[in-house]
Amino acid sequence: MILLDGKKTANNIKDEIAIEVKKIKENGGRIPHLAALIVGADGASLTYVNSKVKACQRVGFNSTLVDLPIDLTEEQLLNEIELLNKDTEIDGYIVQLPLPKHIDEQKVLMAVDPLKDVDGFHPTNVGKMTLELPTFLPATPYGIIELLERYKIETSGKSVVVVGRSHIVGRPMSILLSQKRKAGNATVTLVHSRTTNLKEITLKADIIVVALGSAEFLTGDMVQEGVTIIDVGITRVKDDSRKNGYRLAGDVHFESVSKKAAYITPVPGGVGPMTIAMLLKNTLLACKMKGL
Amino acid sequence: MILLDGKKTANNIKDEIAIEVKKIKENGGRIPHLAALIVGADGASLTYVNSKVKACQRVGFNSTLVDLPIDLTEEQLLNEIELLNKDTEIDGYIVQLPLPKHIDEQKVLMAVDPLKDVDGFHPTNVGKMTLELPTFLPATPYGIIELLERYKIETSGKSVVVVGRSHIVGRPMSILLSQKRKAGNATVTLVHSRTTNLKEITLKADIIVVALGSAEFLTGDMVQEGVTIIDVGITRVKDDSRKNGYRLAGDVHFESVSKKAAYITPVPGGVGPMTIAMLLKNTLLACKMKGL
Repeated sequence: MILLDGKKTANNIKDEIAIEVKKIKENGGRIPHLAALIVGADGASLTYVNSKVKACQRVGFNSTLVDLPIDLTEEQLLNEIELLNKDTEIDGYIVQLPLPKHIDEQKVLMAVDPLKDVDGFHPTNVGKMTLELPTFLPATPYGIIELLERYKIETSGKSVVVVGRSHIVGRPMSILLSQKRKAGNATVTLVHSRTTNLKEITLKADIIVVALGSAEFLTGDMVQEGVTIIDVGITRVKDDSRKNGYRLAGDVHFESVSKKAAYITPVPGGVGPMTIAMLLKNTLLACKMKGL
Repeated sequence: MILLDGKKTANNIKDEIAIEVKKIKENGGRIPHLAALIVGADGASLTYVNSKVKACQRVGFNSTLVDLPIDLTEEQLLNEIELLNKDTEIDGYIVQLPLPKHIDEQKVLMAVDPLKDVDGFHPTNVGKMTLELPTFLPATPYGIIELLERYKIETSGKSVVVVGRSHIVGRPMSILLSQKRKAGNATVTLVHSRTTNLKEITLKADIIVVALGSAEFLTGDMVQEGVTIIDVGITRVKDDSRKNGYRLAGDVHFESVSKKAAYITPVPGGVGPMTIAMLLKNTLLACKMKGL
């Protein structure tokens, strides 16, 4: 069994980006600049955003954190979005989700300039991805594609099962893996809550991507020998033996599945770090596109 | 075996639309208006476009045919598109494909106002479809969804195989059938030219949608008893026994497959007429949306 080391791979990608940034600097070019917008920052979301800001610093990007109060109106937030759209210094930005309940999330995401939408969440970018046109790929599926590529895991003609049909992971993942691309050309089955014969399907899969958000959902009896496992989930599970009272669990029951898997991502240290690395890659792309 | 009669179902839909148009007229409202743009009309594409214009007349829509010469430049075509975008009398329009080779098809499709894109081909509309936001669904997949619904064919939890990953049929079909919707919630596998174990997969399917453009590709030995078959293909096959020297064949070998199928669409008279009916439905929607 080989661990698909997302942390190491993400660090390699960051090093590559840092070299590019250094070259841009040396040539007197403009440094990529990522902004992160957060409304009513609480502990968890602030941790996420800070890790993105820190990643920017590491590769030499400029970064801006726009930290807005929780009682902000939708109109005020849309004004802030408009400012980011117009700001020629900002190459790309992300809106940290979820937003407070009094704000229409979809309306806000629709207001993001697709050319600055480095999360790849805007319908125009999702459509371009679906139609195989150049665009920002959503960071988590993009990270998984990159991980498969760098570990040279064959996907063409392979039977891939994607578990979960979320808009930001399962759906785009199922689309990308079946397209004509590197780490593509797979025969993809998308399974979800309404699937009746899940185990029968996962037992035949060469590669399984689990993005359900349900701790240790996929167990050893559900997979065949030699399978490749990509675990997108990350959930806090109560664990009294730990000082902080919890441990982090993926969607995969690592102990039993790893015994049969040829390749498997750990949690943490698998898909998570790759997501941030691809966000940086999208920001670099946004910066380069602006120069054209 | 029950034939899924697309012609009859499409006629029912057209009757329903005609009644709506009559009501709009009686209330002094604006009649829906569809335009079709065709460049360098040849026999086949003119036949298609004319059938769309005729369908408009049948339901009481206004229609306009914009017939442009084959030596038109890309810039001139983009100007024509701009005129259609600005024309407040036109609710929706279609650009008949393929375009002449000196014109960048993607650039033209990108120029269509998404709010008038009743074919549902614009990236923004493809993205909205993928994200389950209200939009114009691409007419052929939409027609298949409608046909399944009207024949009350259960899709939830069923194993569906979509054969072919084209942008206008296979891909959107695979997305729609696995979404949370009526005629949705299926477990969908998208197979294509790189799939290695096709027959093994089709043999387990409850529903198969074939959109390959390869005459009589799916044969009786590839399906199980009681399967539902949707045949999107329509190809001219040489046939010396016919006066015109050819016959129309679907992607399904009808004779052998129909013996095992519970439901099957004929070719012609299956998916084809449904496509035109859904184009009219999208145009009606475009007209209603404009009134809002």
